[in-house]
Amino acid sequence: MNNFSFFNNTKIIFGEGQINQLTQEIPADATVMIIYGGGSIKKNGIFDQVVNALEGKKWVEFGGIEPNPHYDTCLKAVEKIKQEDVDFLLAVGGGSVIDATKFIAAAAKHQGDPWAIIQSFGGAVQGALPIGCVLTLAATGSEMNPTAVVTRADTQDKLFFNSDYVRPHFSILDPQTTYSLPARQVGNGVVDSFVHVLEQYVTYPVNAKVQDRFAEGLLATILEEGPRALIEPENYDVRANLMWAATMALNGLIASGVPADWATHLIGQEITGLYGLDHAQTLAIVMPAVWTYKVEQKREKLAQYGRRVLGIIEADDLVAAEKAIVRSREFFEAMGVRTRLADYGLSADIIPNIIAKLQEHQFIQLGEHGDITPDDVSKILKLAL
Amino acid sequence: MNNFSFFNNTKIIFGEGQINQLTQEIPADATVMIIYGGGSIKKNGIFDQVVNALEGKKWVEFGGIEPNPHYDTCLKAVEKIKQEDVDFLLAVGGGSVIDATKFIAAAAKHQGDPWAIIQSFGGAVQGALPIGCVLTLAATGSEMNPTAVVTRADTQDKLFFNSDYVRPHFSILDPQTTYSLPARQVGNGVVDSFVHVLEQYVTYPVNAKVQDRFAEGLLATILEEGPRALIEPENYDVRANLMWAATMALNGLIASGVPADWATHLIGQEITGLYGLDHAQTLAIVMPAVWTYKVEQKREKLAQYGRRVLGIIEADDLVAAEKAIVRSREFFEAMGVRTRLADYGLSADIIPNIIAKLQEHQFIQLGEHGDITPDDVSKILKLAL
Repeated sequence: MNNFSFFNNTKIIFGEGQINQLTQEIPADATVMIIYGGGSIKKNGIFDQVVNALEGKKWVEFGGIEPNPHYDTCLKAVEKIKQEDVDFLLAVGGGSVIDATKFIAAAAKHQGDPWAIIQSFGGAVQGALPIGCVLTLAATGSEMNPTAVVTRADTQDKLFFNSDYVRPHFSILDPQTTYSLPARQVGNGVVDSFVHVLEQYVTYPVNAKVQDRFAEGLLATILEEGPRALIEPENYDVRANLMWAATMALNGLIASGVPADWATHLIGQEITGLYGLDHAQTLAIVMPAVWTYKVEQKREKLAQYGRRVLGIIEADDLVAAEKAIVRSREFFEAMGVRTRLADYGLSADIIPNIIAKLQEHQFIQLGEHGDITPDDVSKILKLAL
Repeated sequence: MNNFSFFNNTKIIFGEGQINQLTQEIPADATVMIIYGGGSIKKNGIFDQVVNALEGKKWVEFGGIEPNPHYDTCLKAVEKIKQEDVDFLLAVGGGSVIDATKFIAAAAKHQGDPWAIIQSFGGAVQGALPIGCVLTLAATGSEMNPTAVVTRADTQDKLFFNSDYVRPHFSILDPQTTYSLPARQVGNGVVDSFVHVLEQYVTYPVNAKVQDRFAEGLLATILEEGPRALIEPENYDVRANLMWAATMALNGLIASGVPADWATHLIGQEITGLYGLDHAQTLAIVMPAVWTYKVEQKREKLAQYGRRVLGIIEADDLVAAEKAIVRSREFFEAMGVRTRLADYGLSADIIPNIIAKLQEHQFIQLGEHGDITPDDVSKILKLAL
């Protein structure tokens, strides 16, 4: 096991009917900005639940956060915060809304050009407005971590930052809020949380037994409940298990003391930035290709994943590993997320553009060994055609 | 899954050589009290490591915390704190030292009789000095939770309290600190952490898949690594896995959203209070008896534990459950912890005294259903003779 530090001070309030706990978690004299996305929360009753729970508090709203939240949209929210003297941000939505809220929270306290927050990967954050979340989509884990991804539309840059300042003070997770999601978002959320676990698990063994078993427990849960969420969208326990699994998938716990990969995410981000694919679509395309390319290095953990999670019975590690790759691809497809660039109308023509963006962002030593160069990414993407 | 809140803001600093991180975690101008137990840390070099890491800071020491920490000893520490203007407590030891430190931290800020802290189960806590821990024994989980157990020797009362005020600000977990432990303490620690998981898992199913799998992952890890720690006391990974498993076993995570039992702990505490057995010894005695008595109610989770953790292959739940009880008892014995009252020279004569103490403490509705009465405890203890 590697040395590590673990710290996570976000309070989780989980379960049906918990949105009414909002009133106890936000200071009585706060001026709250409710931040949300395309407006579905106004149709499915969640906005009304939130407003009822805020009764007696001063609040304003800011809607229109995009699925990959735009830097410029966030800056408009910062303007409104200053006009309205907002001092508490309440994100109501999925990972994009929460990510945007994190950037807005930091930008509202930032002196100088806020793009420095992104360029410094969060190091330049000087403080942040306090954040609470009402989660409506099980996927990114943003509700219990210090990370956010923001997209700059003019330059097609999709980039992340980390800062303890933007950890949510609390997140309310009511599985019922996910009942009305379209199948595409359910599938994307399942693939996203599943790949989060895999990025922190399919590397090389360091004999970290608790972390491995927690990762395997999350994978097994998502594998069982993901397809059921498509068939039984209003099954409470299915939604609850997926929601808690997605949160635990990226809150720092299973990452503690083990190596991590993240090549799939970093390559995938460039595809979304340039070509607009859903985040989960890019993961489903890239991960099987990364694994195929790196099967020798990853075979021990791939085989362990295959045997412990997927029920693959193969004595040989390499054979088990290869079967695990095939089975993972099948799972993504079963969740309605296609796994080839061609499925999205993309060809080998895109590869130089992806490489150029990775180089521009200095993501030139990817993977758990830092040995995936731009030339390797080119070969990986050819495996994903 | 049941509704829940989860919050844990203790920072964990894990790994070899991490004691030197102390200096960054304690305010520069603090006056630190190093609190420890019987003095083994002065022989094995841990005290010196701590003192070196505190270089430049003002510190005093308070040793002599008992294995089941005494109320009166804690009050002496409070006196010294006031004399020396101590404003930061550093527990260096296992669960008893950390528990004592939690009580001392609360008592130092308490107006009136500090026994009220215990009598109110922590509700009367008005504040606490900040606490840091250097853990030297994988067992109780106290290093990452808000709970403490204190014993009043004059009345033979061993009682717990909970308060968010006494959560450690940080805990340093260096597995190497556990290399020199005597086998008895290793065995006790393994049994204690194993039983912590079981108290939160062997109840009834609520379809909480993440929590179940996390619990099973901890059980499997402790089951594999426990016996190895006796044979290979200086195997770093074995010690690291046991240490992290013990912390995760009782930090609120696997308890979230599921029922809990705790009958074994509450009955066991009275045995320790009256007859001085080690905490883990009482758990190893009582748990198989509770399970045997409640096998009908617990059979689904016992069978799940048997199949997923112990590798029991039985189609019938009751048969699998009964085998799981036998196998658990064998595991405790293999760790050197005997599982019958008679093994410690105790007979049925003690039963009325245990019952009287449970009634005095108002622990008269035990178990996950609250249906274990004093009369049931009497029958349970007869199964433990």
